Amino acid sequence: MELARRRGFVWPAFEIYGGAGGFYDFGPLGALMKNKIIQKWREIYVLGEGFFEIECPAVTPEEVLKASGHVDHFVDAMVECTKCGQAFKAVDLIKEKTGKDLEGRSKEEMKAAIEEGGISCPECGGRLGDVFDFNAMFKTTIGPGSKRIGYLRPETAQGIFIAFKRLHRYSRGRLPFGVVQIGRGYRNEISPRQGIIRLREFTMAEAEVFFDPEDPSHPNFEKVAGESLRLWLAKDQMEGREELVELNAEKAVREGVICNELMAYYMCLTKRFLLEIGIPESAIRFRQQTPGQRAHYSKETWDAEVYTKKFGWVEVAGIAYRTDYDLSRHAEFSKEDLAIFDQESGRKIICHVVEPSYGIDRPFYCVLEHSYTSDGKRSYLKLKRWLAPVSVGVFPLVNKDGLPEKAMVVCRMLRESGITAEYDDSGSIGRRYARADEIGTPCCVTVDYETMEDETVTIRDRDTTKQERVRISDLPGTLKKLLAE
Amino acid sequence: MELARRRGFVWPAFEIYGGAGGFYDFGPLGALMKNKIIQKWREIYVLGEGFFEIECPAVTPEEVLKASGHVDHFVDAMVECTKCGQAFKAVDLIKEKTGKDLEGRSKEEMKAAIEEGGISCPECGGRLGDVFDFNAMFKTTIGPGSKRIGYLRPETAQGIFIAFKRLHRYSRGRLPFGVVQIGRGYRNEISPRQGIIRLREFTMAEAEVFFDPEDPSHPNFEKVAGESLRLWLAKDQMEGREELVELNAEKAVREGVICNELMAYYMCLTKRFLLEIGIPESAIRFRQQTPGQRAHYSKETWDAEVYTKKFGWVEVAGIAYRTDYDLSRHAEFSKEDLAIFDQESGRKIICHVVEPSYGIDRPFYCVLEHSYTSDGKRSYLKLKRWLAPVSVGVFPLVNKDGLPEKAMVVCRMLRESGITAEYDDSGSIGRRYARADEIGTPCCVTVDYETMEDETVTIRDRDTTKQERVRISDLPGTLKKLLAE
Repeated sequence: MELARRRGFVWPAFEIYGGAGGFYDFGPLGALMKNKIIQKWREIYVLGEGFFEIECPAVTPEEVLKASGHVDHFVDAMVECTKCGQAFKAVDLIKEKTGKDLEGRSKEEMKAAIEEGGISCPECGGRLGDVFDFNAMFKTTIGPGSKRIGYLRPETAQGIFIAFKRLHRYSRGRLPFGVVQIGRGYRNEISPRQGIIRLREFTMAEAEVFFDPEDPSHPNFEKVAGESLRLWLAKDQMEGREELVELNAEKAVREGVICNELMAYYMCLTKRFLLEIGIPESAIRFRQQTPGQRAHYSKETWDAEVYTKKFGWVEVAGIAYRTDYDLSRHAEFSKEDLAIFDQESGRKIICHVVEPSYGIDRPFYCVLEHSYTSDGKRSYLKLKRWLAPVSVGVFPLVNKDGLPEKAMVVCRMLRESGITAEYDDSGSIGRRYARADEIGTPCCVTVDYETMEDETVTIRDRDTTKQERVRISDLPGTLKKLLAE
Repeated sequence: MELARRRGFVWPAFEIYGGAGGFYDFGPLGALMKNKIIQKWREIYVLGEGFFEIECPAVTPEEVLKASGHVDHFVDAMVECTKCGQAFKAVDLIKEKTGKDLEGRSKEEMKAAIEEGGISCPECGGRLGDVFDFNAMFKTTIGPGSKRIGYLRPETAQGIFIAFKRLHRYSRGRLPFGVVQIGRGYRNEISPRQGIIRLREFTMAEAEVFFDPEDPSHPNFEKVAGESLRLWLAKDQMEGREELVELNAEKAVREGVICNELMAYYMCLTKRFLLEIGIPESAIRFRQQTPGQRAHYSKETWDAEVYTKKFGWVEVAGIAYRTDYDLSRHAEFSKEDLAIFDQESGRKIICHVVEPSYGIDRPFYCVLEHSYTSDGKRSYLKLKRWLAPVSVGVFPLVNKDGLPEKAMVVCRMLRESGITAEYDDSGSIGRRYARADEIGTPCCVTVDYETMEDETVTIRDRDTTKQERVRISDLPGTLKKLLAE
C-alpha cells in the first residue's frame, strides 16, 4: 500500500483535510489499471456472454429500497462506547480483539462475545453499550423539503431489476438473458480501517442473469464442465474445519454441492477473470456462505475469495442465487406485473436470477499485492503485461546532445500507434529503470548515442532486465509482440 | 426522445415506481453510445493532450465544499406556492411564463418579474411567496451519527484540486499540466422537467489545466490559431443583441476577446470534440457568460452551446478561467501550502487553472437529435459510423433452411474480430432493416440462399440503402473499411 501510494496508484481521499475513512482516490496509474480491469470484465461478460450493459443513477428513491429489503435488512451491527460515544462495527471489533468471526450471528451473540472477551472501547477504554443495528445506506433527500427520501444505492442490481420489463423486451423474449451494470456502490461503514478493502464508496460490476426456474441450465456449460473449483463448504465452516473440497463444475452440480449449472458456470467465469488479471490459482477459493451470513435475498451464495498477506482471505466477488425474490418484491410494491409469458413453454413465469457480483477495488488490491516481487537486488511489480498502467517507458540515456528530443519523438510515435508510452528524463538511467520496475512497466526503451547514428534503440525487459537492440522503425511491432506475451 | 425511449437508448429511471424527476437510465444502446462519446473525449484529452486521469469519490466531506465555496454559493433561487407548498426554480418558471431569462440576476429582480408577469402557481393557481436560495447539493452524513456532514459532489473538479500536490509531483514539476476526471456529478434540482438536459445525477468530463499565471500560453497553440470560433459576447447579450462575432483563435486572443491562449485553445478543442461526435458547425456557438451568470470561482467563462429543435441553444460545456481561486481557498482552509516552486523561473507560485468542463448526457442528446433524419419514406439515425451503438446487424433472409444458424455463425465471427454485431431474426427482413435504421446501425449483413451455395452475403448501407455482395471471408475487412468512413 505504501508503494501504491507513493507511486500514484491510490491514496486516501481528502488527504489535505485529514482524510475520511473509507474513501480513496485512484491516481493516474491506479485509474489506468482499474479501467483495464473493468475492460477485461466487460470483455468476458459483454462481449463474451453477450450481456447488455445499462447505467442507472446511484441516488435511489426510498420506495425502491423498501421493496428490495435494503431499508430493513442492509444493516451493520454496531456498538457505541458509553463514555466517549465512538462507534464501532461489532464484528470487526470482536475479530480484532478475539480472532472470532461472528459475521451473520445474532446481536445477542455479539454482545456476549464482547462481555466474555472483556472488550472495552479501543479509543478511551470506556464500557461498550448494547449491540444495535445501523442502516448502512447513505441517506439523502431528493428535491427541496425533506419529504422525498433517497439513498445511495448499496448495489447496482436494483436498477436492473426495476427496468426488467424494458430489458426483457429488448432481449426479444429469449431466456436466459443477462444484463450488467458497472458503477459506484455505497456502504456507509461504521469505522472502516482496511484501506481499499473496506470502502464506503466502491466500484462494482454486477451481472443479473434472468432464467426460467424450471431450466437453470447454461447453453455453454460443457465449456466449463471440466473446470476445477476449490470449495469451502458451509457445513465445514460451521463445524470449524478449514478444509477445501476440490471438484469440477460438472460434478459439483451433479452431486448437488452447487445448486445449478448457472451458478457453477459463473463461478468458473469468476475464476477465469481472476486468473486473467493475474491472481494465482492457489490463492483462489470459493466459500459457501452459511445461512446466517447470506443476504436476505439469497438462497445460495458462493464468495470468491483471494488470499492476501495483509488481510488474509478477501472476498472479491459473490455469486448469488437470488431466486425470484427481487422481481416478486418489486411486482408487489410497484403493482406492476413483472411476470413474463414464455413463448417456448407457453407458461407465465417470474424469472429467477443468478447474480455474479464483483467488486473492482478489491481485485485491484489483490493484483497489486500478488504482483509485488522482490529478489533482494530489486523490487518490481510483475503485472500481466496488458494490465500494466504504463506499457513502455522511453528514456534518453543522458539529457544532452539531442537525445531527449529524439526520445520524445520516439515516445510520441509509440503513443500514436496506440501504445501507452511515457517519457522520463529525471534522475539517472538506473533510477528511471527502478521507477519503471516499481510501477510494473514491462518494457523500457532507451535512446543513446548509437541511436543518433543508426536509428536503433534498446528495449529492456522488466522481468529479465535483459536488453535487446532494435530499429526504431520496427519498434511498434516488436513492442506490441512483447506486450502481448 | 420517444424514439430514444422505445429503442432502448434512455428512459426515466425508477419508472415502475412512477419515476423521479431528473433521473434517467441509459439502456443497452444508450450505454454503448455514451461510452463511445466518453472514449472520444479521452482520446482528445488523455491520449492527445497527455493529461492524467484520476478518480475520486462522489461523497465529499463538508469542509472541502465549504472551502470551494459550494456550501455558500451553489444555490438555486426558488419560489414556493403559499397555498399548495409546491416548489419551483424561479428562473425556469419566469422563462416559461414570460420568455425572459433572469439567470444570474438578483432575487429581488426575480420577485419583481413574478409580480409584474402576474405569475401564480402552475399547479394550483395559488400565490407564490418570496424568492429564496436553496442549496443544490445532495446532503448526507458520513458514518453513524449526524456529526460528519457530506455532500454529493457538484463537480469532479474539487477532487483534483485537493490532490494537487501529489499530482504536481507526479507531473515532475512541469507546467502547464492537466488532470482529468470523468464521473458522476450531482445537482439537486428543484423541479427538473427537460428530460436528460436537466438531470439531478449526470456524467461529467472535466479537465483542470494548471499553469503559471505569468505564462498562459499553450505549447501547441499554433495548431489551432487559425480555427474559427463563433462567439456571442457578454456585452452583446447584456445589450440585447443576438449577434455572433466570428474570429479565429489567434485574433480573438490578440484582441483580448478571449483572455488568454489556454482558454482559446480549449475552446477550439471543444469545437473539435463536438464536430467529431457529429454536431454540425452551424449548430455550435460559444457564449461568454455575463458577470451575473458566472460561477463564484470564475473570472471568464465561455459556454459551448449546441442548437437543438426541442430545447433551443443548450449549454454542453464550459471553459472557465478559475484563476488561483480553488488552490488558494483550499490552502487557506486546509492550512496546507499549495504553492509550488517553479524550477524554470525560480519563483514560488500558486498555479492558475483553466477548466474545460463537459457534460456527457447533453452532447449525447444533441447528437441523437441532430442525427435523426426522415426523408418521407423512412427515418434513420445518421450517426457517425464509429458512434453507432451497434455497428452491424446480421439477419437471415428467412427463418428456415439453416439460414439462421449460418447467420449466427457470421455474427459470432464478426464479434470475435472486434465488431459490435447483433443478430436479429424477428419480424420480416424489411422490419429488421427499419429497426436497424432507427438505431443508426451503419451496415446490415443478410444471409440468403445464395450464401448457402457460394459463401457470399449482402451488405446494406444505412444511408444509401444500397446493397453489395461480398464473400464471408472478406467480410470483417470490408466492414471495418466501411465503418471507418
